[in-house]
Amino acid sequence: MTKAPEPSPIPTAIRERRQRVQSAETGMAVLKGLAHLGGRSSLTALSAHVAESPAKVHRYLASLMEEGLVLQDAVSQHYYLGTEAIQIGLAAMRQADPIRAAEPSLIRLRESLEVTCFVAVMGNKGPTIVRFEEPGLPVTVNVRAGSVMSMLWSATGRAFLGLLDESRVLALAEQELAVSPEDMRATLDAKDPIGQLRREVQEARCASVKDTYLRGISAVAAPVYDYAGRVCAVLTALGATGGFDPAIDGPIATAVRQEARAASAILGHGDGRGA
Amino acid sequence: MTKAPEPSPIPTAIRERRQRVQSAETGMAVLKGLAHLGGRSSLTALSAHVAESPAKVHRYLASLMEEGLVLQDAVSQHYYLGTEAIQIGLAAMRQADPIRAAEPSLIRLRESLEVTCFVAVMGNKGPTIVRFEEPGLPVTVNVRAGSVMSMLWSATGRAFLGLLDESRVLALAEQELAVSPEDMRATLDAKDPIGQLRREVQEARCASVKDTYLRGISAVAAPVYDYAGRVCAVLTALGATGGFDPAIDGPIATAVRQEARAASAILGHGDGRGA
Repeated sequence: MTKAPEPSPIPTAIRERRQRVQSAETGMAVLKGLAHLGGRSSLTALSAHVAESPAKVHRYLASLMEEGLVLQDAVSQHYYLGTEAIQIGLAAMRQADPIRAAEPSLIRLRESLEVTCFVAVMGNKGPTIVRFEEPGLPVTVNVRAGSVMSMLWSATGRAFLGLLDESRVLALAEQELAVSPEDMRATLDAKDPIGQLRREVQEARCASVKDTYLRGISAVAAPVYDYAGRVCAVLTALGATGGFDPAIDGPIATAVRQEARAASAILGHGDGRGA
Repeated sequence: MTKAPEPSPIPTAIRERRQRVQSAETGMAVLKGLAHLGGRSSLTALSAHVAESPAKVHRYLASLMEEGLVLQDAVSQHYYLGTEAIQIGLAAMRQADPIRAAEPSLIRLRESLEVTCFVAVMGNKGPTIVRFEEPGLPVTVNVRAGSVMSMLWSATGRAFLGLLDESRVLALAEQELAVSPEDMRATLDAKDPIGQLRREVQEARCASVKDTYLRGISAVAAPVYDYAGRVCAVLTALGATGGFDPAIDGPIATAVRQEARAASAILGHGDGRGA
């Protein structure tokens, strides 16, 4: 790792700036600009987008073409992103990690709402907690990192059930339903217990439970999507029923949904870019 | 469009070089290097890969981080591709066009083998020719750009049938089989006509026909894959039976497969990078 050569009186911001490379940053801004414009643009539109002169942008495009990141259409003269840009994206997608992406969200939920919260992914046994955060005065629950949650009775499981369209998810829910006590089955729709549950989750874009999975515990859970629009994780907040509002339009559910969207954005889900 | 300011005695190569931006190219080389290493690397390994000093690469990485393309893992200190790199890849994928990607392959096949060749995609009516190339002395065939080919009896259709796993592809083949004359059905496996055909194509990674679809015409067809590993087009060469070798290990099939791979590489399929 290189270090700043020696202690210096130059302010940090300027020193850091000097350690970077201005033209490389302009080149990256041109590359990002082309992506923000949908991957294809005229020189005029791209120059306007990055707020540089066409002559300057043209030189940077020549460099991007030299490196195989950009091609020029012979007919329209438009520039568009090429194969090397696909390869960079594919490599970046391989690095996209829902656990890492959701970590700042867990911290913010813990700090702002003082709730226990966690990230779960679909493991081979079911929804599995992979990252767990507790506030200073935690509520006592018997789940932790590594715990496999109920597909049917936990908010986490229901978020996967409603929004992750995979046959094994449905199969797990049906297995659980078959062995559930009568009083719990009675809380679900009589005709189409799983289908109705899924529709509710799909409509609310989150799942909420009160005392169904852990006695005295309520929870809300929202999906984290990857670049391909697939649910790759679920973000859940929980607390003691009574002190915790599990309403799907309440402040906790709103915050959990918002943080799940933030984690999804880090994973490349949705453009979310101003046109 | 900017132009070179005036006629100049400087050789073109040097003039073009001056119109580019060296540091932007180095920045792109660092970005591509990180992608080639799987999207994550130590400074040491990345510096070795791009053959630049760690101090220099570190400065470029600072710029890539500034632009949101690269992140640094706080624990391992490794650098990895971030959200902006995913967005660039997604935009590039939207631009990836199998017809444009296969065009150089069509020209090369026409020139080197003097065969009629074309690119087809799955249209809503079936495999549809979208780009058609003929040699100087073409064989007369009644297909052209816009023609919809048989799913079951053309080499093009069989390549889709064997390698594109979509229910509508299978449905089209079954419809055609139901209305095929007995003598043509007799050329297929008696017990599992479509299943056996698919397995043959899957094994050969190409499809070959002789007189089945157009009398007196033989053809070989190979799949073009996109970045997601899905068959997005089929590349086909055809000629008059007798003067055209449709053997799946013959020189024409070998060339068609090779050109289909070249077109797939342009679309981001497979890494194909030396480790």
